[in-house]
Amino acid sequence: MSEQPITGEFGLIEWIRGRRPALTPEDGVFGDVGDDCATVGLRERLTLVTTDMLMDGRHFRLAEVGPEAVGNKAMGVNISDVAAMAGVPRFATVAVALPRRDAVAVGQGLDAGLRRMADRFSVHIVGGDTNAWDGPLVVSVTLIGEASPLGSPGRSHARVGDAVFVTGPLGGSLFRGRHLRPEPRVAEAAALLRATTLHAMIDLSDGLSSDLGHILDESGGLGAVLDADAIPIHPDAIDMAREDGVPALRHALDDGEDFELCFTVPADAAEAIVNGPPDGVVLHRIGTIVATPGVRLRGSDGRITAVEPRGFDHFRGPSPP
Amino acid sequence: MSEQPITGEFGLIEWIRGRRPALTPEDGVFGDVGDDCATVGLRERLTLVTTDMLMDGRHFRLAEVGPEAVGNKAMGVNISDVAAMAGVPRFATVAVALPRRDAVAVGQGLDAGLRRMADRFSVHIVGGDTNAWDGPLVVSVTLIGEASPLGSPGRSHARVGDAVFVTGPLGGSLFRGRHLRPEPRVAEAAALLRATTLHAMIDLSDGLSSDLGHILDESGGLGAVLDADAIPIHPDAIDMAREDGVPALRHALDDGEDFELCFTVPADAAEAIVNGPPDGVVLHRIGTIVATPGVRLRGSDGRITAVEPRGFDHFRGPSPP
Repeated sequence: MSEQPITGEFGLIEWIRGRRPALTPEDGVFGDVGDDCATVGLRERLTLVTTDMLMDGRHFRLAEVGPEAVGNKAMGVNISDVAAMAGVPRFATVAVALPRRDAVAVGQGLDAGLRRMADRFSVHIVGGDTNAWDGPLVVSVTLIGEASPLGSPGRSHARVGDAVFVTGPLGGSLFRGRHLRPEPRVAEAAALLRATTLHAMIDLSDGLSSDLGHILDESGGLGAVLDADAIPIHPDAIDMAREDGVPALRHALDDGEDFELCFTVPADAAEAIVNGPPDGVVLHRIGTIVATPGVRLRGSDGRITAVEPRGFDHFRGPSPP
Repeated sequence: MSEQPITGEFGLIEWIRGRRPALTPEDGVFGDVGDDCATVGLRERLTLVTTDMLMDGRHFRLAEVGPEAVGNKAMGVNISDVAAMAGVPRFATVAVALPRRDAVAVGQGLDAGLRRMADRFSVHIVGGDTNAWDGPLVVSVTLIGEASPLGSPGRSHARVGDAVFVTGPLGGSLFRGRHLRPEPRVAEAAALLRATTLHAMIDLSDGLSSDLGHILDESGGLGAVLDADAIPIHPDAIDMAREDGVPALRHALDDGEDFELCFTVPADAAEAIVNGPPDGVVLHRIGTIVATPGVRLRGSDGRITAVEPRGFDHFRGPSPP
């Protein structure tokens, strides 16, 4: 079957729309697809909103990874932000600046990747803005979700004595491109919210040292002591350590883009979820919240050393990929 | 009073946050400012979502207009999309890619412009993503609004016999930079929704010929006959015509970025609002919806000519500024 060649912005927009499932009020989508403004129906009183922009050369290299991987990541990092609030992702809008030379092919690949990740979490893409220009690819996704009626953990209520957990192995996400394939912990977060008392939660995008630092800062300047032996190290971090000589543990602490959850619960609740974790949730208890500010590491020899948070600052530093 | 110099992404984010008013549940904002994901409370059952991305060199020239004008426009075009749905704009998120060389100054100016427009419409900026890179400035705003309980006009219900209206003079918005200073018709749209039967409505961003074309297409392939003498021509279009030799009427039909509303109402309702327009709403009745597809123009001599819709296609053509 031959297809018409696609030319121009309106042609690409038509193509993208044609491939979308027809959305109805049963999907929570009202109004017309063609409107500049989508109309959606939310079931909960409180609405979650998050946005993340990815730029070629900063967050990925289009020429190396292709547009589908970019779309998958752009949708995934936003879903992960809703997971950190233990919410339900529902609707997304997508704004893109496509490199003009390849606009149609890049737009199509990007759309496929966006939809692949969105479909996995029953997220409907309800609107967007499609542009082309002489610059590199930029994609900005905004995700709208529903807060749980049980509440949202946020970052600011960690307390001294809380146990610190993560939901999976960390580090080296750049080594084999795992940073392009986030696995947002939506179901895990919801299960944890039901099962325990979440004082604070965040998804690991900047890296454990830096993201846990956000929780500590926003909870009034607390600290954490982490057990070096308890921090789960991803095989990618070990392989990366072999190549670059940076200890695998440093990769686990600093690399970021693991998209696992990091959360704190009161000590007694910690015992309970360690003994009976929610179905399908991997838990690693890695340390304790303390009053003295800063992240510190207790080595196998019992020695405690400070961990310098190494947040990824987009204004400096080399490109992550 | 001396201020600390701002360095890096986190410094700029701190500065922006420090200048924001503290938002509380009374403002509809719940949760913590620091969360990657904002929590907002909506009062209506149906939620409007729209997103628009502006890129340096495509939608503005940063070096000529400065970051504050860009912020003002980026927020305004999104508010205008909510106005076209006769909704109430409530919350915005802003994702930016700042040119690294000037990231802090551009970020600060942009924020001032975004806030200036947001404040005028009581819109709260509840989240964002701040990045810097080697490319040109990109800003992507997503706006969340509340649909009116009276409904949203949309674009797809124009009918044969409807009268076509616009809310103000058109054309030449690029000539003196008026395209940078949108005046979103939020109150006007709400007043019209209360006062009359809106079959279809759109904000004029691409240009009358093209935006009215969207209504005609999405209403099942209708047409419109416009009275050349009734189309309100902006003084900028007249001055621009003097310079470029393109008739002022063509500018009014094609230029775009006027951000006036274009809407259709049944003929009997049209009489009523012409005789008693809602307070503060400027109305120009410019034509009639007909069954024969396409936009046509009736000249003062009674001759009818076809108007080729000249939609702005970002994949082609020169930069609009």
